[in-house]
Amino acid sequence: MARRVRGLAASAADQPLAEWEFERRDLRPDDVAVRITHCGVCHTDLHAWHGEPAYGNVFPLVPGHEFVGEVAEIGDAVRDFAVGDAVAVGNIVDSCGVCDMCVGGHEQFCVEFPTLTYGGVDRRDGRPTHGAYSTEYVVTEGFVYRLPEGLDPAGVAPLMCAGVTVWEPLEQWAIGPGMTVGVVGLGGLGHLAVKFAAALGAEVDLFTTSPSKADAARRLGVRQVVVSTDEEQMAEARSRYDFIIDTVAVAHDVSGYTMALKFGGTLCLVGALDPTSINPLAMLGRNLTVAGGGGRPATRRMLEFCGRHGITADVEVVPASAVGDAFDRLARNDVEFRFSLDMAGLR
Amino acid sequence: MARRVRGLAASAADQPLAEWEFERRDLRPDDVAVRITHCGVCHTDLHAWHGEPAYGNVFPLVPGHEFVGEVAEIGDAVRDFAVGDAVAVGNIVDSCGVCDMCVGGHEQFCVEFPTLTYGGVDRRDGRPTHGAYSTEYVVTEGFVYRLPEGLDPAGVAPLMCAGVTVWEPLEQWAIGPGMTVGVVGLGGLGHLAVKFAAALGAEVDLFTTSPSKADAARRLGVRQVVVSTDEEQMAEARSRYDFIIDTVAVAHDVSGYTMALKFGGTLCLVGALDPTSINPLAMLGRNLTVAGGGGRPATRRMLEFCGRHGITADVEVVPASAVGDAFDRLARNDVEFRFSLDMAGLR
Repeated sequence: MARRVRGLAASAADQPLAEWEFERRDLRPDDVAVRITHCGVCHTDLHAWHGEPAYGNVFPLVPGHEFVGEVAEIGDAVRDFAVGDAVAVGNIVDSCGVCDMCVGGHEQFCVEFPTLTYGGVDRRDGRPTHGAYSTEYVVTEGFVYRLPEGLDPAGVAPLMCAGVTVWEPLEQWAIGPGMTVGVVGLGGLGHLAVKFAAALGAEVDLFTTSPSKADAARRLGVRQVVVSTDEEQMAEARSRYDFIIDTVAVAHDVSGYTMALKFGGTLCLVGALDPTSINPLAMLGRNLTVAGGGGRPATRRMLEFCGRHGITADVEVVPASAVGDAFDRLARNDVEFRFSLDMAGLR
Repeated sequence: MARRVRGLAASAADQPLAEWEFERRDLRPDDVAVRITHCGVCHTDLHAWHGEPAYGNVFPLVPGHEFVGEVAEIGDAVRDFAVGDAVAVGNIVDSCGVCDMCVGGHEQFCVEFPTLTYGGVDRRDGRPTHGAYSTEYVVTEGFVYRLPEGLDPAGVAPLMCAGVTVWEPLEQWAIGPGMTVGVVGLGGLGHLAVKFAAALGAEVDLFTTSPSKADAARRLGVRQVVVSTDEEQMAEARSRYDFIIDTVAVAHDVSGYTMALKFGGTLCLVGALDPTSINPLAMLGRNLTVAGGGGRPATRRMLEFCGRHGITADVEVVPASAVGDAFDRLARNDVEFRFSLDMAGLR
């Protein structure tokens, strides 16, 4: 007999998110049922809801892929988790486990494509996955992470997608003391990139179109704010950075950022999915890369790092019942960093 | 009293290359005068002649920046070269020598911009530089290279620009045994990239729009030819390469090549200078870089490698008097790999 849960679902791209009762699978031996307390609100949720093809387009759609909660029940074979454990889950809930990418801990690039937390298809029963804007989630224990002690769960939820998305490249490019890092954009991803890079020991500057964000940026660890629409400031920033992480979610000209790199430096795009133009002359001797999500080892290391450094996302907690307002505000960029939905109201 | 030399010059973008007598400077203490025997014909020469802004636009224009010859005279302070030495010179004839890039041996990225062999301005006397489609060149000894023994000078000339342009990234990305390398395009740059990568021990495949080049490609060391306009072949090539070097000189879609990279692999553009579009989704976990020329240490290592492995460019030698025909053919891609101008006729 399946498990009844309550969630927030859109029945179509133009329909609102409304309460919906649906079923999760009965626990398999390696499954964990997580009673969800908080779920971050990601831009991807907005895109998926409105049916943009690059984000999948499966209705009814229950969004939500960065969540925290408490273990409510475990399958017979689960040894690493116990009922009552505080846990977190991100945007991948399964993968083939045997391809080079999975074996190397890069499940986000599984050659059979990882199973996404929503908008995916379960590898074993073939049923669609529904996200964490809901009371409970059932997930194989291999993709469940222990919540670091001492951190506010509402602020940990966004670490599971926004966080690992910026953590993975910072780790891969070995960001640390003696390096200069630029972060483009100070939203959900950008503010975590600033916190991580600063805690890793780098000097961090922010590129933004909004000079009004300067105070918030400095509070988070930024040394200097470069207004990217100011040609003089951009000219001064030339050849200054070892690494720039660009978190802006819409296509934009990146030439100014490649020019701001030192010889051998790397610009990493993590936000934009749309095609964009590059100017080879502005990239001579520089590198461009695109990162997307993180595998399990990187996710575990990020959580461990956050626990040690007391890092969480800066969130505005909103009750699940206010999800409509939250999305309206997200769509017009009226959120400082990230919303975290409090799921208590759904029960 | 200055040195009289004969050269081939265009008086304007729409004028032919015609014989022209002009002056080179008298030797400074650190100068070497090189009697030119062969000069490669680079696409850049064509662009510069026709006045495309990205290539400079200085008339009268004497093209030519990859040449070989014999030392005709040396300045008082020159110790490393003697009259009669066989030498080669590339597209850089001077640089500031003190910036980080120069100190690091990346003179091509000198912060004061390197002095180009033609279309540049001499750092000391402020006069324009004229290229090597001429009987003699005067150059500071620091940018003169010894010709490896046993190599055909006509085929060494193109190593000095086309060669180092592809050598530098192959060396920087440590191409060697156990790696799979793709080369896009089989022209002047591409055929040298194939020879180098194969001699470095990598498995080399060629991407081309011309299946007719398959035989030539295999003769040069290519394992497999992938026809880039064939969707099926491109789909089979996915996630196969550690490194792809793209030598195509016009802007084109690179998504198929980024998709052909393994996770963590790098696509290096060396041919195109025009802006081009990239698709971030086709670049997830992959890298894009742009290389342009090489510094002195890389140039010396390339020449040493070519001497050891008996590598030269495959050239069609044409007399200087036939330069007009050669350019007509170059403009319509009617050259197998590279022309090398024989300067004997100019004397």
